[in-house]
Amino acid sequence: MKKLNLAIVGYGGMGSYHGNNYLRENAKFEISGIFDIDASRYAAARENGIENYDRFHSKEEIAADASTDAVLIATPNDSHLEYVTFFAQAGKHIICEKPVALSSAEYAQMLEVCDKNKVVLMVHQNRRWDPDFLTVKKMYDKNALGKFCRIESRVQGANGIPGDWRKFEEKGGGMMLDWGVHLIDQMVYMLPELPESVYCRYFYGAGFEVDDGFRLEMNYNGGLSVEIAVDTNCFIPLPRWTVYGADGTAVIEDWALNGGIVKPVYSKDIKIAGIQAGNGFTKTMAYRTAESVVKSELDKVSPEPNAFYNEFYDVVVDHKEPLIRSSEVMNVMKIMEAAKRSAKENQVITIARH
Amino acid sequence: MKKLNLAIVGYGGMGSYHGNNYLRENAKFEISGIFDIDASRYAAARENGIENYDRFHSKEEIAADASTDAVLIATPNDSHLEYVTFFAQAGKHIICEKPVALSSAEYAQMLEVCDKNKVVLMVHQNRRWDPDFLTVKKMYDKNALGKFCRIESRVQGANGIPGDWRKFEEKGGGMMLDWGVHLIDQMVYMLPELPESVYCRYFYGAGFEVDDGFRLEMNYNGGLSVEIAVDTNCFIPLPRWTVYGADGTAVIEDWALNGGIVKPVYSKDIKIAGIQAGNGFTKTMAYRTAESVVKSELDKVSPEPNAFYNEFYDVVVDHKEPLIRSSEVMNVMKIMEAAKRSAKENQVITIARH
Repeated sequence: MKKLNLAIVGYGGMGSYHGNNYLRENAKFEISGIFDIDASRYAAARENGIENYDRFHSKEEIAADASTDAVLIATPNDSHLEYVTFFAQAGKHIICEKPVALSSAEYAQMLEVCDKNKVVLMVHQNRRWDPDFLTVKKMYDKNALGKFCRIESRVQGANGIPGDWRKFEEKGGGMMLDWGVHLIDQMVYMLPELPESVYCRYFYGAGFEVDDGFRLEMNYNGGLSVEIAVDTNCFIPLPRWTVYGADGTAVIEDWALNGGIVKPVYSKDIKIAGIQAGNGFTKTMAYRTAESVVKSELDKVSPEPNAFYNEFYDVVVDHKEPLIRSSEVMNVMKIMEAAKRSAKENQVITIARH
Repeated sequence: MKKLNLAIVGYGGMGSYHGNNYLRENAKFEISGIFDIDASRYAAARENGIENYDRFHSKEEIAADASTDAVLIATPNDSHLEYVTFFAQAGKHIICEKPVALSSAEYAQMLEVCDKNKVVLMVHQNRRWDPDFLTVKKMYDKNALGKFCRIESRVQGANGIPGDWRKFEEKGGGMMLDWGVHLIDQMVYMLPELPESVYCRYFYGAGFEVDDGFRLEMNYNGGLSVEIAVDTNCFIPLPRWTVYGADGTAVIEDWALNGGIVKPVYSKDIKIAGIQAGNGFTKTMAYRTAESVVKSELDKVSPEPNAFYNEFYDVVVDHKEPLIRSSEVMNVMKIMEAAKRSAKENQVITIARH
């Protein structure tokens, strides 16, 4: 079996995570070396057991190394275009961290140069292999809740936004580009169509120039709506997912896939009794009794942890059709641009059809 | 002590509930009789122990009864204007079920006729005395979470929308008018300003001509946002309230006021460790450890259950300044109109300042 030799460009938090958690575990890959503008990261690479930690000290040295087949670009977001362009022209296949670019125009440039140089550009949309997401996707694909009416996809943190370049707009900081890109990508991948329109509110509670959270509402043809919610100052998180189907509701509480499905039982024998609720009475909002619902377990999906790198290998070596299509990545970029414009102008933005 | 003699106009689900649960318990009131266009409701009134159940068989008989001081109007929403106008002209003080009117223009007519005839018109915005709401309001008033950044107020039912007139638009059906009116009223009452703009999506999953649920986003000056969420086909409800403050998060799960407050502890000794989350790594979204948060109980408020009727008595008999101001009720009507227009046009609607 051919091994892919891959150099890590940008050996920070994410670059070292890729090395330690995926590349080291995957027999199809060798790390040919690293490059970082911060000299102290070479010691970190050595500590992490990277054999060739000291091999490259410039991007040009990687480009000139014939044994290096591919690069992982895990640098700040505003430098992706420069590195993708450079390594594509050097004939290296590329994995690029998300967001791949700061704009759809930048991404179009990247696609052009990669196409021209016949190299693979795969964006690290690894959260297509999140077990929670795939569990939702399976419900959708199998129509397990009837027609999906609404999806609420939330990631609510309690640690503020990271203190590094992720606080600055020109660097591509902010939570839309950090987490929104994943959560939107999941919907672009799962759903057959793009939203017709979006409405987005950015939050600036922490007082930085970038969004420290947001709510994005995506409206689809046929009545489906999707809310994407991201927070960084939330100490009692809501469930990761709530899915409202015509025939039932599913909740996934957390990354550990706690949760379940509840569906109603309709029968003449089951009467709805009104309840005292607050200072008033309600039948509409009365809780259902135990005998008027059926609870079931989530049909959990457990993807291969190294699926992303296996996919990259198959696309590069075996010319597999990529799962992460460039048209999808482009649509994610366009939805994020629409969301940003919506937040800035406080307007609903229509998504152009392609 | 003077007793108020009150006739119940519309002895359906809500009218009989008022009689059984509030008027019967309140020594300041006597039920002078009922009126319903459905003759079978007189038997229900007798069964419920209303002494004068058979006294009135037309609205004119109530108007002509000098001993009747006031009426409760609990008829379908599209008949409120007719009854309010009629009884105001007859000099009766009025409690009217919510929504008081189908439009702000209708409500303006009501105010004019009540003002001219010097009668009190009090809208049954009883959910200003909901314990859950007052518990949130107390946190707001006491600044218990620091600056409020976002409020999510939800009522998620599992019983569909009621099968009677509430399914029809011309009758004033739909969940915005049924529950939205309460949840918006709570915010109009609690917050010092109106939202600057609103965005609303109506849901039609049940296939009726009226909304069977909705999401309303209200944007306030200074960055506060409020989401109001109502569903009628949800089998795993989210918490009744999530309040995101600058200094902590509060959750009220349900009508029983389960929930609590969690605030962060910031200290150099507390390090945030990244976690494996799905197919990736995150420090931003890592859960906080037990020692990095402080949990506390909700400071629960327990209002007098009969507060609404006591308020009506005080306003009518003692000329107390009303807690439920007509300007507030008018603002609720205007926000609902803006929400409806927003949902229909899929546009953000600016709220006019007064």
